[in-house]
Amino acid sequence: MTATDTVDLSISGTVVDVTNGTLRETSVAIDDGEIVALGDRPADREIQTEYIAPGLIDAHMHVESSMVTASRYGNAVLERGVTSVVADPHEIANVCGVSGVRGMIEDASYTPLKMRFTAPSSVPASHLQDGGATVGVEDVRELLADERVIALGEVMNIPGLLAGDETVHAKIEAARESGLTVDGHAPRVAGDDLQAVARYLDNDHESVTAAEALEKLHAGMRVYIREGSCSKNLDELIALVDRDDVDSRRLSLCSDDRDVTELVELGSVDFAVERAIEHGVDPVEAVQMATINTAESYGLPFGRVQPGAPADLVCLSDLTSWDVDHVVVDGVPDPTEGIGEPPATTVETDTVSFEAVEPADLAIERLSGGPVRVQVIDSIGRIQTARMERELPIERLGGGPEVVTPDPAADVVALSVIERHGGDGSIGNGFVHGLGLDRGAVGMTVAHDAHNCLVAGTSFDAMARVANHLEAVGGGVATFDPDTETMETLELPVGGLMSDEPLASVNEQFRTVETAAREMGLDHEGGVHALTFLALEVIPERRLTNNGLVDVEAFEYTDVVLE
Amino acid sequence: MTATDTVDLSISGTVVDVTNGTLRETSVAIDDGEIVALGDRPADREIQTEYIAPGLIDAHMHVESSMVTASRYGNAVLERGVTSVVADPHEIANVCGVSGVRGMIEDASYTPLKMRFTAPSSVPASHLQDGGATVGVEDVRELLADERVIALGEVMNIPGLLAGDETVHAKIEAARESGLTVDGHAPRVAGDDLQAVARYLDNDHESVTAAEALEKLHAGMRVYIREGSCSKNLDELIALVDRDDVDSRRLSLCSDDRDVTELVELGSVDFAVERAIEHGVDPVEAVQMATINTAESYGLPFGRVQPGAPADLVCLSDLTSWDVDHVVVDGVPDPTEGIGEPPATTVETDTVSFEAVEPADLAIERLSGGPVRVQVIDSIGRIQTARMERELPIERLGGGPEVVTPDPAADVVALSVIERHGGDGSIGNGFVHGLGLDRGAVGMTVAHDAHNCLVAGTSFDAMARVANHLEAVGGGVATFDPDTETMETLELPVGGLMSDEPLASVNEQFRTVETAAREMGLDHEGGVHALTFLALEVIPERRLTNNGLVDVEAFEYTDVVLE
Repeated sequence: MTATDTVDLSISGTVVDVTNGTLRETSVAIDDGEIVALGDRPADREIQTEYIAPGLIDAHMHVESSMVTASRYGNAVLERGVTSVVADPHEIANVCGVSGVRGMIEDASYTPLKMRFTAPSSVPASHLQDGGATVGVEDVRELLADERVIALGEVMNIPGLLAGDETVHAKIEAARESGLTVDGHAPRVAGDDLQAVARYLDNDHESVTAAEALEKLHAGMRVYIREGSCSKNLDELIALVDRDDVDSRRLSLCSDDRDVTELVELGSVDFAVERAIEHGVDPVEAVQMATINTAESYGLPFGRVQPGAPADLVCLSDLTSWDVDHVVVDGVPDPTEGIGEPPATTVETDTVSFEAVEPADLAIERLSGGPVRVQVIDSIGRIQTARMERELPIERLGGGPEVVTPDPAADVVALSVIERHGGDGSIGNGFVHGLGLDRGAVGMTVAHDAHNCLVAGTSFDAMARVANHLEAVGGGVATFDPDTETMETLELPVGGLMSDEPLASVNEQFRTVETAAREMGLDHEGGVHALTFLALEVIPERRLTNNGLVDVEAFEYTDVVLE
Repeated sequence: MTATDTVDLSISGTVVDVTNGTLRETSVAIDDGEIVALGDRPADREIQTEYIAPGLIDAHMHVESSMVTASRYGNAVLERGVTSVVADPHEIANVCGVSGVRGMIEDASYTPLKMRFTAPSSVPASHLQDGGATVGVEDVRELLADERVIALGEVMNIPGLLAGDETVHAKIEAARESGLTVDGHAPRVAGDDLQAVARYLDNDHESVTAAEALEKLHAGMRVYIREGSCSKNLDELIALVDRDDVDSRRLSLCSDDRDVTELVELGSVDFAVERAIEHGVDPVEAVQMATINTAESYGLPFGRVQPGAPADLVCLSDLTSWDVDHVVVDGVPDPTEGIGEPPATTVETDTVSFEAVEPADLAIERLSGGPVRVQVIDSIGRIQTARMERELPIERLGGGPEVVTPDPAADVVALSVIERHGGDGSIGNGFVHGLGLDRGAVGMTVAHDAHNCLVAGTSFDAMARVANHLEAVGGGVATFDPDTETMETLELPVGGLMSDEPLASVNEQFRTVETAAREMGLDHEGGVHALTFLALEVIPERRLTNNGLVDVEAFEYTDVVLE
């Protein structure tokens, strides 16, 4: 190829040169999917734009949080200028194990977005709950051999890492042997413990304060600034960029989790770039944090505009407001235009299985007549919970036994977690404060990390209806309003976590369910999503599993009824 | 390992945190060769120092230019705080091929310095001269499989690269398949050609002006600033560091070649760091250019001070003047102290072989009586040559034939290149201007890149003596002064390029030879080293090979005698 040969595509504008950290007016010559020159070349097609940035890379995210399959996700965010994501298939692995991960990797091949994966390192999250699968050392090793798997997924078992747990270290060793990155997950780890984990973990996306992030940077870790749905840390952390003792090239932007509504309405990592610029960050630096910095973190060849790089580009009419004109992937402009339906997913779709439950199965029997003191999960923030004590009445359930009964007037409702992976069908029952529900029930098969079937409600009858309905449809999110006798459902048949319909349609259905829940009084700031964390037995202070209530600090089961 | 466990070594001082680009007072805890924490730990040994920097890395160098074996080289530069080099064994490969490279890699295992290698990409340099070996695509592939080989060595055949030469591209492809870096060598390549080569080459160390380097940076290449013996580019290029459109993290420092005298008297890449600081570069940035930047260029795990990194450190009493107190490699302080003699090298030592030459073999016969016009190589700079025409007399050689005769009074002396690799023993004869020699002869078996036996002199008799002597001793550098009948020799038996004696002793012997040459009138600014480039048939304008004079622009042979 010489300078007079005609190339496939030439794009002219101001290039965001993330390699050198500067803006420069030039043309980008693209042939056969690759950037072949910066400079004018005769071309079959020419695009004139204002700015030419590398396609954005989301440094850490979970596709499952969007509730759509990988191909649907990819097509949706591509239009925003996101051309790659580093996806940790942690959730589907908890349900379907390696086969779920492989299915998601295959799904991802049906979107032009370059989805790269990490091998989930922490499945199951703990021994206290029964999930659908485990991912062992050999599984990790097998996954790491796939060229689309570029890292060991976020290592969550920090106590195990510190104590020299063999399995944790064997997984890390497997990644090192393959020359791959090890993603970290070390919330609030500091001091001596941080120094110890920094030997093994290359990055962390869990910092919520600038001081926490700074300590991690100074221990040699890369810091990913997270702007997701559960955790929005950018406002707190963005000042790091301008510190003298920080090199912004050590920072990346990520979404971690992004629910379908925010994804549709606000965007993905493109939103974080825009927000960083709003905070006064130099636009080139902001783009670096979502392109080359992340590419270097994982040794990816794209995320830069230079000869030899894959032509993954975003044409923008405005850089600071991230107004996307065209997206180019491997030299193809707007590759999602007219894209057909993806083939059916190969991720399992029949993953929700338990014997039909009766209302009494979801209640705690109690023979003595008077009210009892119980430990209640207090849902105090987006994903945080606290221990709370409340006195609850004993009432006869229909014609059945006497049971501890929720007290919606005091904002205490019943909560059950039903093993749904075809295991023993065990059910853990308890109570939760802070949802605001004043009638009916809300349930879902998305319940981090074991993703059992979780139902909250003011009546055991409504709860049982919702649970049995979810089992029948193969999973999803559902509400039952006894006033109107209406069941609203977002079906998520793919692993009980995802839909294979387009993002916009899933968002619409989710809004319907969310609205129904709000009608029934749900007033938690996290909405329906808040419920999905009530079974997450690794985050303080109290969580409910299919085996019962967990005291997270003690990391053991604890009784609901206190006597 | 917990915070109360005793570690092997603790070093306290101000850490040069190249990862984040800052200085920070702390202790570095080292155990089992690894940095395990930044912070105080009980330790078996404690060192208090002023500054703790990562050990330096020379981004690109040729061991052979120092004229000592790899182990000797390593031990010598370690004391200066250089703990790693990226060595391109291009010269030994031209003499001994892959076995020479493997021998050098083995030699390197006997020094604590971490010598990493590139697979020579361009052996032979051309088809116009007969060297000792070729390194083909399969050879490159084999070498790249060695874990100490971290890149494809500098790709010199730029015309071949541009023209799609299959061998050049196959070698690059082999490196890419192994996920390895491709080193470039693109002097004065600019414009469209630069864009084309930037698709394939990751870095370049040949820029001599800031404009040339800037163009390469903006084409996405890393730029190595070279401060060696032949080429000293730092003064010209260092201003790049402070440009707004340059990120200094894309710059590295290298020596490329460093002759034994400058190595002993000035140092290696440590000298470049010191000189950069003298130029006003922030010391942390200067150290970055000789540590983490280079480590990132090749994916090396050292070159930084952070938990999890190998403990390769330099303790300094002063940072700006680079005053080294201690050097630590893999946690071992001052590892060369009391180090024994390295075992005998496995690089071939019997590589200089040709039939004894007679004076007449080195002369050009000419039957016609009068003076003739000849093309002369004008040695105009350290490594540059120009075409020159001169008239030379015809004289009878002893009782032998009439030959074209040098004219020392006009600074034109005879030059011969004798094939010395056991091939056909062919001899190319010609003339050179600009050495200043007024008597005797100077010869050497170091003659880039084919490393034949090159001899220059005012008399064919002296030249033949030097050549035959070099053959007898297995190679080296020698002078013969007819006034004193003295032969001075630096023997370089290892491939005819290197000595296995210590650096200081080799320097002493080299100084003796150099002094003898100066006594005989040699006044070229490059000294004896200038002669080693007179056979380098790939650099303009005229060079002499064993097959005759080469017109480098035309890339073909040309007659010495013009009619």
